[in-house]
Amino acid sequence: MKETTKELIKSKIRTIPDFPIKGIMFRDITTLLKDADGYKIIIDDLAQKYKQMDIDIVAGIESRGFIIGGALAYKLNLPFVPIRKPGKLPGEFISQEYSLEYGTNTLQIHKDAIKTGQRVLLVDDLLATGGSAKASIDLIEKINGIVKGVAFIIELPDLGGSKVLSNYDIYSIVEFLGE
Amino acid sequence: MKETTKELIKSKIRTIPDFPIKGIMFRDITTLLKDADGYKIIIDDLAQKYKQMDIDIVAGIESRGFIIGGALAYKLNLPFVPIRKPGKLPGEFISQEYSLEYGTNTLQIHKDAIKTGQRVLLVDDLLATGGSAKASIDLIEKINGIVKGVAFIIELPDLGGSKVLSNYDIYSIVEFLGE
Repeated sequence: MKETTKELIKSKIRTIPDFPIKGIMFRDITTLLKDADGYKIIIDDLAQKYKQMDIDIVAGIESRGFIIGGALAYKLNLPFVPIRKPGKLPGEFISQEYSLEYGTNTLQIHKDAIKTGQRVLLVDDLLATGGSAKASIDLIEKINGIVKGVAFIIELPDLGGSKVLSNYDIYSIVEFLGE
Repeated sequence: MKETTKELIKSKIRTIPDFPIKGIMFRDITTLLKDADGYKIIIDDLAQKYKQMDIDIVAGIESRGFIIGGALAYKLNLPFVPIRKPGKLPGEFISQEYSLEYGTNTLQIHKDAIKTGQRVLLVDDLLATGGSAKASIDLIEKINGIVKGVAFIIELPDLGGSKVLSNYDIYSIVEFLGE
């Protein structure tokens, strides 16, 4: 993506200080999603990057990863698998705990969500500390999926998420420094 | 959609008894979403129906409505607006309480999510009692959006949701009777 397009995308992302807790500069993509051109640009960019990569399935992390991952899976004519917060999956599932920027949490995946050896693209909106993405990777690998890539709209490089995910092919469209 | 295609779609939806509580036959769309053809068929069907309807914006109800709504908005080259559970929206929002099949809940929308007079297509995966859809309609109308249509993958006609939404143009791809 051209630097000018990246700047355009960044300009459509709203920053809200002290959400969800004091000291966090929250990068709010709802202002990007409600811009038809901005939304199309980010999904097309991800589709362009991953269409040649032999992906079998797109996994999205609840909840904002569902929007991006759902659209991307559709564009690539791939299936979609949700990685969910506790209590939401009706079938047999496995769980993974993790620490996040402000607290702890658990993610879950259906045991039959991915077939052994399927190549998975993991999608979320934001890479911060990498906790939820790493927990999602662990879930995918526990059910014998292969993580071929991890894609984000936004990366906050100062929070070190790319180090946590250093064994994987990660990609983010834009970065916000100074976190 | 042809009846045979509807039957195909229904066959890809898994039924899990007694989730989330005893007595509920949970219609699980994750088995449909993880089938690339099934996923494409439902999004294409919705896109075909709504592409001529002069929609300005697609709103999806958290969380499964994000998958369907996100993909549909992208396909129609429209913006996407999330209607969220409490505590998730970082900007100024309004709230609407509602009763659902098993308990009560609240939904929220950003005050600036929709411009006055914008024509909104509301999307969720399932129409049961209509509580969450009606609450979402109330939110959209409170910020002066116009609800042009309400789309679901599944309707459970026995639960009466279509009566609750009788003032609106509602559409569901498949129905499960006997709930």
